[in-house]
Amino acid sequence: MESETKNLVGQSRIPLLNWLPSYSKALLSGDIMAGSIVAIVLLPQAMAYAMLAGLPPQIGLYSCVLPILLYAALGSSRTLAVGPVGLMSLMVGEVIGGLNLSSGADVLFVAVSLALLSGGLLVLMFVLRFGSIVNFISHPVLSGFTSAAALIIGVSQLKQMLGLDMPRAAHFYETTINLVNAAHTINPATAVLGIAGIAVISGIRTPVLNRFLVGLLPKLLYAVVSKSGPLIAVIGGTVFVWVFELDRTSGVTIVGEIPSGLPRLSFPRGDWEMFVQLLPMATVIAIVGFLESVSVAKALASKKRQKIDANQELLALGCANIGAAFSGGYPVAGGLGRSMVNFSAGANTQLASVLTALLIAFSLIFLTPLLYYLPRAVLAAIIIVAVFGLFDLKTLKHVWEYDKAEAACLLVTFFAVLIIGIEWGILLGALVSIGIHLQRSSEPHIAIVGRVGNTEHFRNIERHSVTTCSRVIAMRVDENLYFANTSFLEDYIMALIADNQQAKHLVLICSAVNKIDSSALELLDTLIERLRYVGVNLHLAEVKGPVMDQLKKTSFLVRLQPGQVFLSTHVAMQTLDSGQNFTTDPDFSSE
Amino acid sequence: MESETKNLVGQSRIPLLNWLPSYSKALLSGDIMAGSIVAIVLLPQAMAYAMLAGLPPQIGLYSCVLPILLYAALGSSRTLAVGPVGLMSLMVGEVIGGLNLSSGADVLFVAVSLALLSGGLLVLMFVLRFGSIVNFISHPVLSGFTSAAALIIGVSQLKQMLGLDMPRAAHFYETTINLVNAAHTINPATAVLGIAGIAVISGIRTPVLNRFLVGLLPKLLYAVVSKSGPLIAVIGGTVFVWVFELDRTSGVTIVGEIPSGLPRLSFPRGDWEMFVQLLPMATVIAIVGFLESVSVAKALASKKRQKIDANQELLALGCANIGAAFSGGYPVAGGLGRSMVNFSAGANTQLASVLTALLIAFSLIFLTPLLYYLPRAVLAAIIIVAVFGLFDLKTLKHVWEYDKAEAACLLVTFFAVLIIGIEWGILLGALVSIGIHLQRSSEPHIAIVGRVGNTEHFRNIERHSVTTCSRVIAMRVDENLYFANTSFLEDYIMALIADNQQAKHLVLICSAVNKIDSSALELLDTLIERLRYVGVNLHLAEVKGPVMDQLKKTSFLVRLQPGQVFLSTHVAMQTLDSGQNFTTDPDFSSE
Repeated sequence: MESETKNLVGQSRIPLLNWLPSYSKALLSGDIMAGSIVAIVLLPQAMAYAMLAGLPPQIGLYSCVLPILLYAALGSSRTLAVGPVGLMSLMVGEVIGGLNLSSGADVLFVAVSLALLSGGLLVLMFVLRFGSIVNFISHPVLSGFTSAAALIIGVSQLKQMLGLDMPRAAHFYETTINLVNAAHTINPATAVLGIAGIAVISGIRTPVLNRFLVGLLPKLLYAVVSKSGPLIAVIGGTVFVWVFELDRTSGVTIVGEIPSGLPRLSFPRGDWEMFVQLLPMATVIAIVGFLESVSVAKALASKKRQKIDANQELLALGCANIGAAFSGGYPVAGGLGRSMVNFSAGANTQLASVLTALLIAFSLIFLTPLLYYLPRAVLAAIIIVAVFGLFDLKTLKHVWEYDKAEAACLLVTFFAVLIIGIEWGILLGALVSIGIHLQRSSEPHIAIVGRVGNTEHFRNIERHSVTTCSRVIAMRVDENLYFANTSFLEDYIMALIADNQQAKHLVLICSAVNKIDSSALELLDTLIERLRYVGVNLHLAEVKGPVMDQLKKTSFLVRLQPGQVFLSTHVAMQTLDSGQNFTTDPDFSSE
Repeated sequence: MESETKNLVGQSRIPLLNWLPSYSKALLSGDIMAGSIVAIVLLPQAMAYAMLAGLPPQIGLYSCVLPILLYAALGSSRTLAVGPVGLMSLMVGEVIGGLNLSSGADVLFVAVSLALLSGGLLVLMFVLRFGSIVNFISHPVLSGFTSAAALIIGVSQLKQMLGLDMPRAAHFYETTINLVNAAHTINPATAVLGIAGIAVISGIRTPVLNRFLVGLLPKLLYAVVSKSGPLIAVIGGTVFVWVFELDRTSGVTIVGEIPSGLPRLSFPRGDWEMFVQLLPMATVIAIVGFLESVSVAKALASKKRQKIDANQELLALGCANIGAAFSGGYPVAGGLGRSMVNFSAGANTQLASVLTALLIAFSLIFLTPLLYYLPRAVLAAIIIVAVFGLFDLKTLKHVWEYDKAEAACLLVTFFAVLIIGIEWGILLGALVSIGIHLQRSSEPHIAIVGRVGNTEHFRNIERHSVTTCSRVIAMRVDENLYFANTSFLEDYIMALIADNQQAKHLVLICSAVNKIDSSALELLDTLIERLRYVGVNLHLAEVKGPVMDQLKKTSFLVRLQPGQVFLSTHVAMQTLDSGQNFTTDPDFSSE
């Protein structure tokens, strides 16, 4: 086990030990640059996401110190930037909103418990090598879920961005209704700040402004400025509120006092009853966070021909989340946008992330008083811009063109997440996509084949001009033989035999059969009996090596006799046809 | 739709109209013989099963009149014998036991409701063409479920067979504990009757006695006697109790008064709250009954090259169950043992079943007073002998040899049904078997292939001596490409490219790929980009017709360029290798 893991991750169980000893100065400038820029992006983002989760802003910052350091030591990705992310913040917020907690201490306890539980689940999945569980979530389900989450997040931020006076709601439809009812309570000053925030953050990304900045600024400064939209909005908004005293005169909600100093390390309290209640959502948080992190890490690693070890990521993300729990934070993952910033700003190793963590720690110690007048509307603007790109109509369009049933699955997930909630919505989507897959393979494509001209090739009699033989039927099943399609296959073959009274041999061509499960083996046994009863012998052809190995474990090949397993359809037809009908085959041209 | 159905069932929506008009006298003797023998088997069995379900014995007989007549008219099987069966009686009993009903009227109401609900569900499945839902239950799951059910049924009958004084329990483990605790309350007279019953019923089936009887009796009488074990036990037991007054002197429980006369037709009362509560179990009853009936019907039909239409069976069984509900019966299905008796006694058409129903009706009108002294221990013996054959260790042995994971799935189902109950046990088993299937196909067999000698064949480089080329990698994936294996495939290909730095082309051989879903298409798009970034072109080869048709719906083939789709691996290697390395290929022998 040890050596296997070593191979996968390179040299050691702790990836840090692979790159740190051989660290060269040439890598340093890139790492410093990237680490600083990510800190600038992360500082306001972490506070904004914490507030999306219904938590005080410092909790977001606490989640950016120890977790980042732990991931830097254990993660197999060189450039993944860990910290609070939108989807998980939304889910934490949904849990907190649904529990009707009275005290702030309870809210923090739930956040810490979720981090501890999802971290523990990830480590458990690492121990059990269960990383493959994420395989059961298909691309359409993920896309539908992400779009729905983006919509929920965006709508939930309108309250803060426009300064509406409305109660917090657990469900999307309640939030929407509350928004409409509270539309008249809009706070003009807040709305101006929020809309200006969106304009600054998204404006600085527009191609026109980008080209202008490239010409104006030195290259290094440009790299910093072009990523600093959120920071500029934060500084501008804070100064504006402070100068015009908008918090007192115009009712603009501000962040207020943030306790300064690093998070205190503490052992999270245990409450079994609460843990049991939180477990379903913690599972979804763990899986979604793992999915997002690994897909981002893989995309970045492939650009440098580096490898990601999904199981190592389970360990690293698990430890990062447990670290978050021990330092008063909430669940973290590798974020897409932030990691892209890290990568494109030149990060070479996780040293960049170490620097990010140190800069966030510095801010926690010295800069929190400066954030007193930061308007929440600006934080809401940061989130809205961040999630806007997640709303994914393109995938729906592509999937719709390609496969209507999968598109339906995407839409089911999207609406289910909006209507019945995140964890049940994503579960329903996953079940529907598995159901579609099983349903499809339960009615496989079956071709009756014949010989093409004078060759050894056998093709579908409905698509090609081929020679057949009335005594021998050759059928190719284009699917694994397993429980979901045994019934279809049974009906198909018995109908085939009923319709071809002259047939004496049936050759089942297994070139597309990668697996025969025990239900299908049982069916083959039944078919041997039933076909023999009506004077037909069953044969197999082109059985693959692994399938043959498994069949040999049983006495099936004995029960098949006088039926045989032929290497190729050609040999089967040559042997069984006894020289009849194949006028095109030179070997049998005497008849 | 109409014409399609006509084709499948022969000529008409009502199969009765196919065989009755052309009925010939030659068929009559077989039908009369079979119908009479089945009635002899069914009379005691129906009462025994009703009592297994916790119902008065006449309910079992009521379930043998109208339901049998309806199935005879609508069923696509010529020989299936419908009526109460063990598995469904057990499930009805579990529902009744779990509800803690006080009055006998409530018990009857639940039984009738279950028949109405499961009948309605079957007709609904017929309308929606949902017969394929049964495909999702694999053979090991079914075997595990049947064995567990046989065990539960057998154990539950020990109380009646031995005359134990113990309370009725809802769960198997409670029943077992109660049995052990009540072992000392055994009633000697009852136990003697019960054991004698088992001896008579199973004794008459033994080869030795059978050979003796064949020599002794005329052929016709032998056919009747050899199936009459239950009836002989019933008559013997009844006479014994009546003569020695065992019910009063020795505490033998007797059936007592059975109301004589046919069931009254009545419209079942509706109680929505109860219906909602019964729905999950009614669904399982409907599916299990359908599964058992169709598999028995298929097995018998194949012996005469007849066809079974699964959707027509949904309609016929649905109507039979609704008929049971309207005539005071409980859920019915086609039983294995009884149908085998019917078939082997010479039944040619459902006229045999019509006769069975008429004989049961006759018994209800005239013979019920004779059953007053029938000891319940004999009915329990009938059930125990009937379910003994269902306990299926052979399948476990076969599946264990063939595939350990599927054997585990069988055992999970077996113990889950015993421990957590029938409907959740079977659901868990189905989910586990689907999970195993997905897990398997999520790590497909992948072969890197090379040219075999001087041929156009390409085989696994690990199994065969083949020629390869360092610039072109040809890999064959032996599985459909779909969401469960995209992640594995991505990792495999990126590692392959990282390990083969000279590679310029990757050919994905799709000869075993019957389906590419949208998640896999997304992966292929990602791979095109990532491979291009590191200087490798992706190509496809041997893509099947239906898969190619679907790919052509998108702009994938444009995005693939300069990658191509080759007709065969041979053509791909010829084109991409540019004459290098293939010293064995005559076309490129110049180098």
